[in-house]
Amino acid sequence: MSTITIVGTGNMARGIAARALAAGRNVEVLNRDAQKAQAFAAELGGNVTAGTVGQPPAGEIVALAVPFEAAKEVVSAYGDGLAGKTVIDITNPVNFETFDSLVVAPGTSAAEEIAALTPANVVKAFNTTFAGALAAGETSGQALDVFIAADNADAAAAVSSLVSDGGMRPIVAGPLKRARELEGFQFLVMTLQANPAFETFNWNTGLKIVD
Amino acid sequence: MSTITIVGTGNMARGIAARALAAGRNVEVLNRDAQKAQAFAAELGGNVTAGTVGQPPAGEIVALAVPFEAAKEVVSAYGDGLAGKTVIDITNPVNFETFDSLVVAPGTSAAEEIAALTPANVVKAFNTTFAGALAAGETSGQALDVFIAADNADAAAAVSSLVSDGGMRPIVAGPLKRARELEGFQFLVMTLQANPAFETFNWNTGLKIVD
Repeated sequence: MSTITIVGTGNMARGIAARALAAGRNVEVLNRDAQKAQAFAAELGGNVTAGTVGQPPAGEIVALAVPFEAAKEVVSAYGDGLAGKTVIDITNPVNFETFDSLVVAPGTSAAEEIAALTPANVVKAFNTTFAGALAAGETSGQALDVFIAADNADAAAAVSSLVSDGGMRPIVAGPLKRARELEGFQFLVMTLQANPAFETFNWNTGLKIVD
Repeated sequence: MSTITIVGTGNMARGIAARALAAGRNVEVLNRDAQKAQAFAAELGGNVTAGTVGQPPAGEIVALAVPFEAAKEVVSAYGDGLAGKTVIDITNPVNFETFDSLVVAPGTSAAEEIAALTPANVVKAFNTTFAGALAAGETSGQALDVFIAADNADAAAAVSSLVSDGGMRPIVAGPLKRARELEGFQFLVMTLQANPAFETFNWNTGLKIVD
């Protein structure tokens, strides 16, 4: 059985772990704090092991379930240690001070900036799925759409397989630079969650292409 | 009863007209070719009149149901003739030669470029709704989400009212510059329609925030 390594122990880590376990994967959880990782693994139950960020990841897929700045630090610290791995970038590089733009420049993306720091095959995924929806595996009874962008076809296929095995619909949107559009739109969706005009939007919606 | 003027006689004009009539609005159709406008108005039936582009629009709302380059030409030709009007920009400024980027620079949008050419209150709307879905008023039994971006609150409210009266869900996303994210993501959605990997996507999907 293949393994997915998840870096982080927050709500997005919990959501991705839930779907990976539903997909029948082994899960390895890494945190800077080994005790936090162990407690998180115990909470998740199932085929979950724990370790410390910096140790060689057991997974062929490494999901960085941490914010943008931390994601850059993690891949930089690993250096060549992630070569050959499929690294999932879930980040939304929102400027939370203004909530009016991204912190990456127009014409680029967090995914591309992370990819520039690592020899791993970086895949954008799960940036449009909120943690609660991932944990539940659906939104209002509808399967989640998971948008995927990657330059490496094998890496995209591996993440696509994880997504479909976890009961979601993978939408492989194109090369990694399509992360620009994915990050841009999710920023807009995030502003709506924080907008009191939308009473039913409470960081629990799902972005979907209805067909 | 208020009137909406629609510039253009293509599929998007047909879809917007259908929803405006469902909303109980009068519709005026303008085309460069008066005969085309008259034939289109006759086809639509109901409270529809026809005229020629360049004549003063009867509607408080003027929907430019034409491509980006034509939309710029129309507002430029009208000059101050659109002052005080609410002008809907529906365009997706996709580079159809490469299908890999927009023709507007990163950090701007077609909506902002159009707004720079007219004293009208420009509202981005209907750029994420395909013509067939507008004509039907739903996608797979779900109400359409219509994303709206505008700097003028009254103009946004007028379009929002048109959308909800037409049986759709208005999502007022913020200032006109949010059109950057709306145009960017719809570009991605359009590439998926043209992608043979998505057999069920055939220029008929609906982009929706499921809650």
